[in-house]
Amino acid sequence: MQLLYEGKAKKIFLTDDPDILHVQYKDHATAFNGEKFAVLPGKGRLNNLISSKIFEVLSEKNVTNHFVKSLSETEQLVKAVDIIPIEVVVRNVTAGSLAKRLGLEEGETLKSPIIEFYYKNDELGDPLINDDHIAMMELATSRQLNAIRLAAQEVNTILTRVFDDIGIMLVDFKLEFGTLKSNGELVLADEVSPDTCRLWDKETREKFDKDVFRRDLGDLPEVYEKLLRRLEGVK
Amino acid sequence: MQLLYEGKAKKIFLTDDPDILHVQYKDHATAFNGEKFAVLPGKGRLNNLISSKIFEVLSEKNVTNHFVKSLSETEQLVKAVDIIPIEVVVRNVTAGSLAKRLGLEEGETLKSPIIEFYYKNDELGDPLINDDHIAMMELATSRQLNAIRLAAQEVNTILTRVFDDIGIMLVDFKLEFGTLKSNGELVLADEVSPDTCRLWDKETREKFDKDVFRRDLGDLPEVYEKLLRRLEGVK
Repeated sequence: MQLLYEGKAKKIFLTDDPDILHVQYKDHATAFNGEKFAVLPGKGRLNNLISSKIFEVLSEKNVTNHFVKSLSETEQLVKAVDIIPIEVVVRNVTAGSLAKRLGLEEGETLKSPIIEFYYKNDELGDPLINDDHIAMMELATSRQLNAIRLAAQEVNTILTRVFDDIGIMLVDFKLEFGTLKSNGELVLADEVSPDTCRLWDKETREKFDKDVFRRDLGDLPEVYEKLLRRLEGVK
Repeated sequence: MQLLYEGKAKKIFLTDDPDILHVQYKDHATAFNGEKFAVLPGKGRLNNLISSKIFEVLSEKNVTNHFVKSLSETEQLVKAVDIIPIEVVVRNVTAGSLAKRLGLEEGETLKSPIIEFYYKNDELGDPLINDDHIAMMELATSRQLNAIRLAAQEVNTILTRVFDDIGIMLVDFKLEFGTLKSNGELVLADEVSPDTCRLWDKETREKFDKDVFRRDLGDLPEVYEKLLRRLEGVK
């Protein structure tokens, strides 16, 4: 297979179909814009299985997305997209950069979800941006941005319920969107996994996400395995 | 007179009328969140005269604001307001933090003006925020925020023309709004001066603003004096 792109956590290969790509999840964990780094055996499998499960749930709920099917424990097929270089963050509870940036305690439930847009640019450290910056840099049209906002809210509603049912609080998460190479349709892309979400046990506040790695709170694959087992119960 | 508040650049005193305050401009220049500091004789007079002139122009154009009248070369009367803790930045040309944040060259004219909101909080370094953050922290109602956005656009249209007429490009500027203590009306407040604007000569790109102090480009009061003389011709 011909390698199209290798990122921090995934390798992407071409397939015979120009509209379909083959994704292989790696065991690499990175944090703080690549400053912290580790290879954690089993992590690729867990991210692939968890993200596949979440995309299956979203597909069932008619959220248009790039996921085609799981191929193996570490591989999946996705539709080829042009990624929109915006990281869309949805927050239900104060944590991480929001708490730090605005001087808030972590763990406060927000009255309404907050949506934030970050310019996906490692060199600049993924800066927070607003709608005017997005228009100026032509990262997305105003129509796309409205659709992204609505889709992000919809994903939040669906996943908040999914996680709530297995005793987990969806604190915040990051989404990426793209336009299908085949027809330009806007779809949810990238992955949705404990690498891209904050997930806390509703009772104990135990973390089931990458903060375990960022903050040295335990064994990451062990924690993700626990999450996968809880998710396996979800229809 | 009883001192109500002393800020970096101004002293504010109570008057016999609880709805009116007496503002005295100081000769202090600060930059980089207070890290750079100097006393520049004559600066208070220049900021007061220039800001008074600009508020007079805005009043004539029916922009509701806090300005009552100039009292002396360094003093003015304003209506008492509760300041909304949002710094509203309007940009017509790339410069300063926008250029740095998004990796852009300085001096590029924007197709449309950009409006940015910053949380007015020295301890946090005045972070950029979006409408959701403003709603969450209850800094302004969504109705107030719409009115602020419209007023900022209106001020930009008026001042761009005023400065253009005297050969100066209005690159960007910061506004603050408040609600009148007397009746709650939303009004433009604070000052509008070369401390709060970027102003470049249209031909030579010579700077007529606080970047002269920030970047050690010359004698600040001398530069502000030149700007005042150009502005005196404006009706």
